[in-house]
Order: sequence, then C-alpha cells, then structure tokens
Amino acid sequence: MASKQMVHMNRGQGETSYARNSILQNAEQNRMRPLIEDAIADLVCSRSMVIADLGCSSGPNALALASIAVDAFRRRCLALRRPPPPAELCVLLNDLPDNDFATVVKSLVEFRRNNGDEPVLLTGVVPGSFYGRLFAAESLHLVCSSNSLHWLSEQAPEDLKMNGIPAYDVDANVRRERRAVVVGAYARQFRKDFMAFLKMRAVELVPGGRMVLSLAGRRSVDLASELTHAWESTAMTLSDMVTMGVIDKEKFETFYMPIYGPSDEEIRQIIQEEGSFLIREMQVPELTSGAYSALITSARVASMLRAAFEPIIVQHFGPTGCDGEEGIMDEFVRTAERRWSLEGSLQDELAQNPRGVLLVSLEKKPS
Amino acid sequence: MASKQMVHMNRGQGETSYARNSILQNAEQNRMRPLIEDAIADLVCSRSMVIADLGCSSGPNALALASIAVDAFRRRCLALRRPPPPAELCVLLNDLPDNDFATVVKSLVEFRRNNGDEPVLLTGVVPGSFYGRLFAAESLHLVCSSNSLHWLSEQAPEDLKMNGIPAYDVDANVRRERRAVVVGAYARQFRKDFMAFLKMRAVELVPGGRMVLSLAGRRSVDLASELTHAWESTAMTLSDMVTMGVIDKEKFETFYMPIYGPSDEEIRQIIQEEGSFLIREMQVPELTSGAYSALITSARVASMLRAAFEPIIVQHFGPTGCDGEEGIMDEFVRTAERRWSLEGSLQDELAQNPRGVLLVSLEKKPS
Repeated sequence: MASKQMVHMNRGQGETSYARNSILQNAEQNRMRPLIEDAIADLVCSRSMVIADLGCSSGPNALALASIAVDAFRRRCLALRRPPPPAELCVLLNDLPDNDFATVVKSLVEFRRNNGDEPVLLTGVVPGSFYGRLFAAESLHLVCSSNSLHWLSEQAPEDLKMNGIPAYDVDANVRRERRAVVVGAYARQFRKDFMAFLKMRAVELVPGGRMVLSLAGRRSVDLASELTHAWESTAMTLSDMVTMGVIDKEKFETFYMPIYGPSDEEIRQIIQEEGSFLIREMQVPELTSGAYSALITSARVASMLRAAFEPIIVQHFGPTGCDGEEGIMDEFVRTAERRWSLEGSLQDELAQNPRGVLLVSLEKKPS
Repeated sequence: MASKQMVHMNRGQGETSYARNSILQNAEQNRMRPLIEDAIADLVCSRSMVIADLGCSSGPNALALASIAVDAFRRRCLALRRPPPPAELCVLLNDLPDNDFATVVKSLVEFRRNNGDEPVLLTGVVPGSFYGRLFAAESLHLVCSSNSLHWLSEQAPEDLKMNGIPAYDVDANVRRERRAVVVGAYARQFRKDFMAFLKMRAVELVPGGRMVLSLAGRRSVDLASELTHAWESTAMTLSDMVTMGVIDKEKFETFYMPIYGPSDEEIRQIIQEEGSFLIREMQVPELTSGAYSALITSARVASMLRAAFEPIIVQHFGPTGCDGEEGIMDEFVRTAERRWSLEGSLQDELAQNPRGVLLVSLEKKPS
C-alpha cells in the first residue's frame, strides 16, 4: 500500500507548489457548487451538520469545497429563518498523512476567523487513506471530494507489477499490443478501490447522507484515454526522457502512475453493484470550452503536472536524473515544453486525450 | 487573544525540543491512568466512543493519554465479551494551531498501524483554543487533558496589563508589596478561562460524558506558589538576566507568563458555580517522592523550562539578548544553571515553590 503513505501534492507556497499550480482543479471544484447546494438544501433538517472533504490537498483549494458548503449551509439556515441558538457546522478535512497539513491547519484558523458568528464553525483534520475507515459510524451528513478519487490505493495495479508488464512501453508497437492488458489492470484496481470507498462511506454517513464527488473520468462513448490526460502526458514526457538517456529505461519500466479515470458507465455499475447509494445526478461536463482553453499553455500544463506528480516521480527515480547534477523535475518540465513547442502540438495532444471530469451526486439509502 | 495563536512547545525532535524534554509531564500523564480507566469502564455501553485529548502537544506525550484510553477501551470490550463487529474508538487530538501538527500527524499514522484490528481506531486533529468551541454538540464521550489547563487564554491578565503592573518586579520589596495584586489578577483570569472551558465542554459532551484533567496546581492549605514552580523559576531567571544587563528591564516589565496553578478549593468552587459537572474525584498527589526527585538536575529543569517557554520568551524578547550574537535561550539556560550551581540550591528553590499537580475526574450531569 505504498501510495497510501506517499502520494501528496507539492508542498508549500513556492513556484512549483500545488498551491500555486492548481487553478484548473479549482475550476472543477466550482462546478460542484450547484450539486453541493442541492445536497445541503435536502439535508438541513437539524441544527448541526458534519461535512468532510476527502483528499483536500493544501493551498487555496484545500478549503474551496468547505467554503462552498459553509455558504450554502448559511444561506439555507437564513432561508429557514430559525430562532437562536445559532446552527453548527463541523468541517473535517482529509488527505493522506504526507499532505502538507501544517499549511492546512493555518488555513483552517483563517477560515474560522473569517466566518463570523453564524453558523458556529468547527473544524478538524483527519489524516489517512479514504480507502479505509476514517470517521465514526453514522457521523457524517455530507462527503465531498474533488480531484482525488482517480488516485488508486496501490502504487501499481497488482496484475501488472506481478507479471512485470510496464505501464507504458517506450516501444510504440509493444505499447499498442499491451494497451488492453494495461488498461484492464488499471480498471480492475479502480473498481476494487472505488468499491471499498463506497463501503467505508456507507458506514460513516447517516442514512440519507449525501456525497458529491468529482474525479478525472470520461464519457464511455468518448475516445479519451482511460488513464487520464495527466497520466498520458506524464508517461510520454518520461518516455521522451528515456529516449534522450536522461532516465534509465529499466527504472521507467517499473514506474506506474497510480491513476485511472473511469467512464460514467463504469462508475454507475460499481455504485449499483455496491448497493448502498442512490445516484441522484451524474454529469460529464465538456471541459474544452473557452475559460479552460485560455488556461492552457505549455508552461502552465507542465507546471501543473509537476505540482501533482513531482513527489511520486522523485520517489521512484530519485531527485536527479542520469546526468547527476540537474534535478529530474527541471528536466521533466523542459522535456514536456520541448514536445509542445511546435505551434498547436499541445492542443493536438489534449484533443487526443482530453482532460475529462465526472461529477456524481449520491444519496445513502435508508438502512 | 495573543496566546490563543502563539503558545506552543518547542517543535521537532532536537536537543531543545519538547519531545525530548517532557519526561516529567509524561509521569503526570501516567498518574491519570486509573482515572481514565474508571471513566471508560463507566462509559462503555455502546460499541463506539469518541475521546478527545485537549492540549496534546507533540512528541511522545501527544499520544500518551490516547494510548491509555485505547488500552482501557480494548480491555473493557474484551471483558464484556462482545460478538463481532468490532467496537470503534475515535481519538481526536487538540492543541493550538502553532503546535507541531506535522509531527502529530506522523505519530497518528504509527499509532493506527500499531493498533491491530480491535477496536477500529479512527483518529483526527482539531486545532484551536479549548477556551472556545472545538467539537460538534454532544459528540464526545470522554475528554482528557494533561498539563494544559494552567495555560491562560490571554497572554497577560487584563488588569495587570491595563494598569502597567509588571508580573514580577526586579526589586524584591516592590514585588512583595504587589504580590497579592498580581496573584489576584492571575486568579481572576484563570477563573474566567476555566469557566469558559467547562461551558464549552458541557455542550460538546454527551450527557453522562466524562472529563479527566490534570493541570499544575496545589493544595489550598499549602504554601506553594499560585503561579506555579515553572512560572517562578522562569521569572527569577529572566530577572537575573535583567540584573546582568542581558535583557532590557522595560521589556521584562511587560512580560507576563500566561500560567496559573489553582488550588483544589478554587477549582472545586468554579466547577460548582458553573454547574454542568459532578466532581467524581479530585486528587493533589505529592510529587516530591523518589522517582520525581531522581529526575531533578539543574540541566534537566533548565531544559524543561526552555522546551516549554522558548516560543513565548523569544516572541517577546526577540531571538537574541542585548549582547546581540548570543541566543537569548542559551543565556537563559546558563543563567538558571548558574543560580542552581550551589549544592542544594535547586532543591531549596523547589521546596519553596514545589511543583504541584491537580487531578480531577468529572461527569457531565444529565440535561
């Protein structure tokens, strides 16, 4: 369970930090707003409510979903015109233990300070893998998660690791031949993980409790890569670095990005099979629209990949490449930018592997 | 509310860290064991229980009370011979936001890993002042706190600050004359804070919920300083440093250690006046016995004071003293050790201001 201990976004506030390279992820969080508002409107029947954000990361996005929820809760309470005492909202933030929690704790202080008196805002941090138990039984009303559930629980799909099959072969022919095997192994791992996620949350949510999730994914009818745009772009870049002799081929062949972007149909089947939740809504929004395209530059995409994947890349390859002195991630960014330096090549790459997102709103069935 | 943001023990694992200079505090935590065991034996009627440690600090002590509670809970469940599913215990750790939570989160991972399957162990971190609300209403079964409640909510007692009265006058005569005023102001601040603490916890505990608290204190009949042994020793040392010209007299006169050690009678009165809790047990153990005396050396006491008070001293006086280059805390340790260099002088100082502890076990009255 390596990835349970290891996956985290780039720490701190610096130029390569996740905090400063996560605008796109924030745009996706904002898409969740109407679903969160609907869930809270349905849920507010008592004066106190407990909300958890799973995979909160750090930086400005760590409290984005919580802010949306607090706003929605406050408006809902005002609409119901309740007499005092003030309503209470408890917000719990979760991520893996290696997440930059020192920064998250500082953000929470700010968040509470800016809140005012109504609702009474209680906050906490729950470190651990969301593929295991995290919260007391029937203690949550709403679970939110953005940009996290496409991360698998294991560093590598078991089948591939056991059989020594690389996730991305440098040789294009071998890669094509093995594609189905690779994707199948990733899909099975995702199914196992997402099933576990649903089971754990079914224990922790009150009956009627809600989940609003957003993760990398795609329409089942689309041609987008099952392994996500980020997976493909990162693998291509590292593969280029092998060809250039900057990183070792054998090392690359045992590197697995623990990410899978399911289709809406896959998700629907897993939810139905697990059986604890009703699907209230499922969306696969088009992301290639104006606001998104404007954000896409070679430098920005390379920095985003770096902010999200530097920890797992450095952990696997070591901080420096074959040429010793130079940091592997500086070389990674340069290699990606070089591939995209031809006018339109980044756009072509993204057209082949569009960045897709699944939005799901679930309700726990009465027990 | 300066101290709400600022008080924390020395971070990390280094030689001057709280983690490595808190054996005495741990000895006091162990004294709480029978009270925690009794409380849990009374409480375990359901399969799931939520426990909070308020003022957990970091280092080995951060999980000491939690460990005692988990052991007691596990033994209790075994004694009741329950059939599966396993019982659940949720442990929440609180301290002020500047506490070294990155280290606490790492300890929690270890703690869960060492736990085994029974009970299911859920853990979280709740940063904030325990003089305000921290947890959802009626969500806690047991609150523990060791070595924390003698820290006041405010950096300085309001009355002293407003009237420009120093906490510890360098002139012994002035100090003697003002002693009652100073102690009175500290006592009033403590009363206000402890009252607020009880009110908040009364909201957060289930009816019948328990609290087991240990804090610096004394028998009302004893001559021990109301301001605690640590307060007196630190003030004396800083006063010596003023006399030596190492720190500025004016600066020292606006320095207030936010600590007060109440008597058993004071605590009893405040609890009764607040009215939400029954006193199940109150103890003022003798601490001058064998095991404790063996721990007392000049170097160890100076390091303990440093580990606990370095952050607030440096925040007030700045990292260096008047002589520029030398760190104020190195000088602090040297000055204290110099005062205690005469055979028996540390023992004499401690005999005049013995280190005292109050142990209290409370039960929330039915509503």
